[in-house]
Amino acid sequence: MVGNGASEAPGSLVGVIGGGTMGAGIAQLAVQAGHAVAVYDALDGAAARAVEGIGKRLDALAAKGKITTEESEAAKARLSALDGLTGLKDAVLVVEAVIEDLGVKQKLFAELEDVVDADCGLATNTSSLSISAIAAGLRDPGRLVGMHFFNPAPLMPLVEIVEGIATDPARRDAVRAHAEAWGKTTVQCRSTPGFIVNRVARPFYAEALRAYEEQAADFATIDAVVRESGGFKMGPFELVDLIGLDVNLAVSTSVWEATGYDPRYTPAWTQKEYVAAKRLGRKTGRGFHDYGENAAKPAPAYEPARELEQSETLRPGSFRLSELFDPTRDDRPSSFLLSKSFGRTATSYGDGRILVDLMLDPEAGPTVALAPAADTPPRGLEMAVAYLQSLGKKVVVLEDVPGLVLTRTVARLVNEAVDAMYRGDADEDDIDTAMRLGVNYPRGPLEWGADLGFAYICDVLDNLENVYRDGRYRASPLLRQLAHADALMGA
Amino acid sequence: MVGNGASEAPGSLVGVIGGGTMGAGIAQLAVQAGHAVAVYDALDGAAARAVEGIGKRLDALAAKGKITTEESEAAKARLSALDGLTGLKDAVLVVEAVIEDLGVKQKLFAELEDVVDADCGLATNTSSLSISAIAAGLRDPGRLVGMHFFNPAPLMPLVEIVEGIATDPARRDAVRAHAEAWGKTTVQCRSTPGFIVNRVARPFYAEALRAYEEQAADFATIDAVVRESGGFKMGPFELVDLIGLDVNLAVSTSVWEATGYDPRYTPAWTQKEYVAAKRLGRKTGRGFHDYGENAAKPAPAYEPARELEQSETLRPGSFRLSELFDPTRDDRPSSFLLSKSFGRTATSYGDGRILVDLMLDPEAGPTVALAPAADTPPRGLEMAVAYLQSLGKKVVVLEDVPGLVLTRTVARLVNEAVDAMYRGDADEDDIDTAMRLGVNYPRGPLEWGADLGFAYICDVLDNLENVYRDGRYRASPLLRQLAHADALMGA
Amino acid sequence: MVGNGASEAPGSLVGVIGGGTMGAGIAQLAVQAGHAVAVYDALDGAAARAVEGIGKRLDALAAKGKITTEESEAAKARLSALDGLTGLKDAVLVVEAVIEDLGVKQKLFAELEDVVDADCGLATNTSSLSISAIAAGLRDPGRLVGMHFFNPAPLMPLVEIVEGIATDPARRDAVRAHAEAWGKTTVQCRSTPGFIVNRVARPFYAEALRAYEEQAADFATIDAVVRESGGFKMGPFELVDLIGLDVNLAVSTSVWEATGYDPRYTPAWTQKEYVAAKRLGRKTGRGFHDYGENAAKPAPAYEPARELEQSETLRPGSFRLSELFDPTRDDRPSSFLLSKSFGRTATSYGDGRILVDLMLDPEAGPTVALAPAADTPPRGLEMAVAYLQSLGKKVVVLEDVPGLVLTRTVARLVNEAVDAMYRGDADEDDIDTAMRLGVNYPRGPLEWGADLGFAYICDVLDNLENVYRDGRYRASPLLRQLAHADALMGA
Repeated sequence: MVGNGASEAPGSLVGVIGGGTMGAGIAQLAVQAGHAVAVYDALDGAAARAVEGIGKRLDALAAKGKITTEESEAAKARLSALDGLTGLKDAVLVVEAVIEDLGVKQKLFAELEDVVDADCGLATNTSSLSISAIAAGLRDPGRLVGMHFFNPAPLMPLVEIVEGIATDPARRDAVRAHAEAWGKTTVQCRSTPGFIVNRVARPFYAEALRAYEEQAADFATIDAVVRESGGFKMGPFELVDLIGLDVNLAVSTSVWEATGYDPRYTPAWTQKEYVAAKRLGRKTGRGFHDYGENAAKPAPAYEPARELEQSETLRPGSFRLSELFDPTRDDRPSSFLLSKSFGRTATSYGDGRILVDLMLDPEAGPTVALAPAADTPPRGLEMAVAYLQSLGKKVVVLEDVPGLVLTRTVARLVNEAVDAMYRGDADEDDIDTAMRLGVNYPRGPLEWGADLGFAYICDVLDNLENVYRDGRYRASPLLRQLAHADALMGA
Repeated sequence: MVGNGASEAPGSLVGVIGGGTMGAGIAQLAVQAGHAVAVYDALDGAAARAVEGIGKRLDALAAKGKITTEESEAAKARLSALDGLTGLKDAVLVVEAVIEDLGVKQKLFAELEDVVDADCGLATNTSSLSISAIAAGLRDPGRLVGMHFFNPAPLMPLVEIVEGIATDPARRDAVRAHAEAWGKTTVQCRSTPGFIVNRVARPFYAEALRAYEEQAADFATIDAVVRESGGFKMGPFELVDLIGLDVNLAVSTSVWEATGYDPRYTPAWTQKEYVAAKRLGRKTGRGFHDYGENAAKPAPAYEPARELEQSETLRPGSFRLSELFDPTRDDRPSSFLLSKSFGRTATSYGDGRILVDLMLDPEAGPTVALAPAADTPPRGLEMAVAYLQSLGKKVVVLEDVPGLVLTRTVARLVNEAVDAMYRGDADEDDIDTAMRLGVNYPRGPLEWGADLGFAYICDVLDNLENVYRDGRYRASPLLRQLAHADALMGA
Repeated sequence: MVGNGASEAPGSLVGVIGGGTMGAGIAQLAVQAGHAVAVYDALDGAAARAVEGIGKRLDALAAKGKITTEESEAAKARLSALDGLTGLKDAVLVVEAVIEDLGVKQKLFAELEDVVDADCGLATNTSSLSISAIAAGLRDPGRLVGMHFFNPAPLMPLVEIVEGIATDPARRDAVRAHAEAWGKTTVQCRSTPGFIVNRVARPFYAEALRAYEEQAADFATIDAVVRESGGFKMGPFELVDLIGLDVNLAVSTSVWEATGYDPRYTPAWTQKEYVAAKRLGRKTGRGFHDYGENAAKPAPAYEPARELEQSETLRPGSFRLSELFDPTRDDRPSSFLLSKSFGRTATSYGDGRILVDLMLDPEAGPTVALAPAADTPPRGLEMAVAYLQSLGKKVVVLEDVPGLVLTRTVARLVNEAVDAMYRGDADEDDIDTAMRLGVNYPRGPLEWGADLGFAYICDVLDNLENVYRDGRYRASPLLRQLAHADALMGA
């Protein structure tokens, strides 16, 4: 008998193992959802400190009026610290959030299995280990379910529910029901490296780093393009500065190693160098950007104001920027040879064209990134800048690197998402939901791919792969199938 | 003076170091061939136990009438356990079969070199270490020869005779003569990762795993296609279940590492996951398949019986399946758009065709695997199934993955074999012999490649590489040369 | 205040940490340049032994008349051994040359920072560690500069001045000024794996090893082609024999690992095998070549003398070999189908042509390497050999491997150099200077590329990548841009 909807039983016991940030966050979430919550940590005093910290956060919520004082006091009364696992005997669910060490987790679950009832849910909050591997420590590996929260757990809306190869679907559904009852949106996936979010998001960092390494632009300018042209909440460099360069590098490295050094996930040399130099981000006062007291704010390299001369025939409003990105239109450059990127360099066309980087919303986006060809006349570039400025846009001029900044990034995000589908790691809706809620993407990658056309995405990737030939931009076989299907349907 | 044909001297002494399965098997083989055999093992009592075990196996052979009681008794009388290396002073050959640890083997041979006569053969049964590296521990590295037996050594007909960079050809020939005198078929090769068999066979496992990961079909169905359509004795998953997933993974990993993480040999994530989950195959009761008491037999997903309607014009016998695979015919699909695979997906043609996976013997093979395109009419697929069923075939329908199951597998086996020739690792006949006798392949890969046409194999690989772009299907330069040569000859 | 031109202050103190070969060489250089030099080594007595050794070398120089006895005595008087770092308090520059261990170097510089004045230059002679990483041990990481000498430091004219991500440009210029004042030519680069020389030179070894592994020719013949046809001072195998196979392999492995196992830098299996066999080069008496007392001299496989028969129409002097390599001429083979290599095999053309490997100076070079196609008539090859011999050339016939020996080598050297530019690792002039002075190349790779045409180099690489499809020959995006620019200019 596997308990389902246990969280509907007020006061039923949830165990949390590990009193660190994630463990405490999960405990807070469970206790606010009405559970009795018992925290255990192998380190003397750590569970008590976690309970104390949660208490303070509950008090603070009450002080801010987010919850009532009664709720806060009641929640605190349901919270306890344990000095051993036996106190979890009557738990309906135990969530483990200890250090990312396979042996430690296997041993812990083997002990837990002897303590808890047969219908108690067993969940691990691991972000980098295989559920299948952790489960190998259990007599009944079917019991273990991954329950991957995002930090801070009480606030982030997403939980990835992760199946190992042995996971029992009923056990999985029971754990999922708890997460939903606690107010989370859940997505379901197989236990593959990085699960959904940490795998599909890799290109967001990797492509920005490659663009930087290839001198397309500086950190601040790339951040601005991704934010202001792509609609992402934060640019990749400022986001990694927040996450910690070392933490983000560890995730990249873990996915890379688990996939047998797949070149799609090779950690960027620049990031390794910054980590070696101990520029770890906000927490050390300096990462890709400088957060020192006297440090200048990062300044994107916007083009200075240009003007069209009277003799020049361009009239503001003569065409709409969004036409460039209309998937039903072909590859011909528009007036003054503005063209969207297909993953090739501007120079490779030999017709002087200027490429325009992808935009989430061509009309509303405040910033446009351009790249001129080696044979673009300088005045042609100035005219294009002046024209876009006349439309109210800020303009950034990148070096003519293949796929610019956003085009390469979005093409690879779509490809990762499609490949996860291809391998049966997760379904379409869950992937898009995970990326919107787990890392705040402005649009799910699969929705984005459908909007742009999978044939276009495949074309961009093929062109990039033809330039780089390092396997990084290789299209998923499913993306190629979707592109063929688009073609069959005349799309 | 290097002894040759020493085994013709009845009663001459052969030493075997290591009393494990392989050592005991080799000792049994040598003693049955008429040698006095002395077994040494560094572990107290292990040599005596090995001798005792061999005695029992000889008794069992006598009991079954395979040898006479006199032969059994005489063989046992020639067999002894040693408690030190000095007993090997008069040996004509010493074969080492201790653990796969370079330092241990180097030290052992350095000691042996001080004990044995100058013309005693020194051989190692290593399967994963470099002969050149082991030989570096000898004063005369030219003495060491690889003598790679297959398990069980008394039964398996093949021995790989392996040369390190320093190996003396006369020493090699002397060791080879021993193996031949013991009734083995020998092949000769350079000391490269995996030698012949363990290297050329990698794709047999890898391509099945990729097809599974890409959801082409389940384990049982892929096994059935490989066995019933390809003529292999066992399917890849049931074979790995027998070998042990961990043992097979260790070989893959060792070849992969030794080749500098060549993507042709990257271990499959799925296999790593199963090993992490401790599903190691028959020995743990579960691997890719379940061997538990109550487990259902693996059931391939054969198509249910379909029937042609009267109004449909297909007549059984209207064409021969083997025409599809006739290398003198071109790429045009046959009636109802059945076509062999060229490594592209069915969908990529845009003409609704159904692909037929490669068959060892199209007329006699009991099972045919198909893959429809996205634009194949459902009734078209049913008609194809019905037609093939009317020919007495079982039919499997795969997802439309590039290169299906057997086409990709055989193309890569041929390529591995050709590449081994290209690098001078072994010659053509020895490679084919090794694969037929070492792993029971129904046909040597080079013979198979010649039958199918190297231009066709190269085409399949190029198409696969154009889809995957990960280096895994890259054709050996020699395969490309053979393909050009085919073209020059109008083949 | 950062001192600049400190070396102009006679007698100002330079500290050298590490009394090994490099440290002693640097100390000798500094003391001969007029500095007081203090040597420190953590190993008891090592500094004194280094000082003694330098003294002997100064005496030897005086004995040979290279310097006066007064200069020698004065230099010795300025030289001292230290038993602690405090003696470096007044140094204007400290150069570290201890073992390649990040922790040791970080700790050392942290201690030094407490001893020396604020304007003392701090330099590390590391060849394989990141300056950024070493600098992370300093309170002021901007102080540290890489000062990469080549062995032997007193004689080799080049010093690479290396910047970490934190290096202060004024500090860098001050260290550079010292090196220039000591008579060195300096080049400036970022701290990337292998800096300039050790990175750009990798293909020189790697391509020769691949040609050997693919049985294009033996070691001696490949060495002869590279030396006599390519104008390099030494062939790759004899050079690695001098450097030490293990030392050279360690550099390759270090670059490969630092770049995330980039297939451009994968160490060759053959070299790993020779190192495992302890054939380490001259220092062990045997490497790729045999240096034993009775060993035969390596003998390149020159073609025996051939003669043209009267009936054959070829006349010596009927065309000039240099026409083959004229970048303004197209791809058509010349008389008797001699053609330069474009990275494809001769056989792939299907017209019987014979390929001619690249030559530094087609008219003056003493040796020409050819490769016939599978369909070259044997007499056609003999005629080509006879004709070239009549021009006074030695002729080598290679197997028909893609890109032969020099074509592939030079194409990759150019590509590495261009890629270093692309990433902003160093500028064009510095790269060429580094390769001419650091490893004695007959021509800087960028100059060589411009001479041959970047479109041609890109074409060779694309053809090689199309054959090998392993990422090793992928053209740098900048090379592709330069090729497009060539095309735009009608070059």
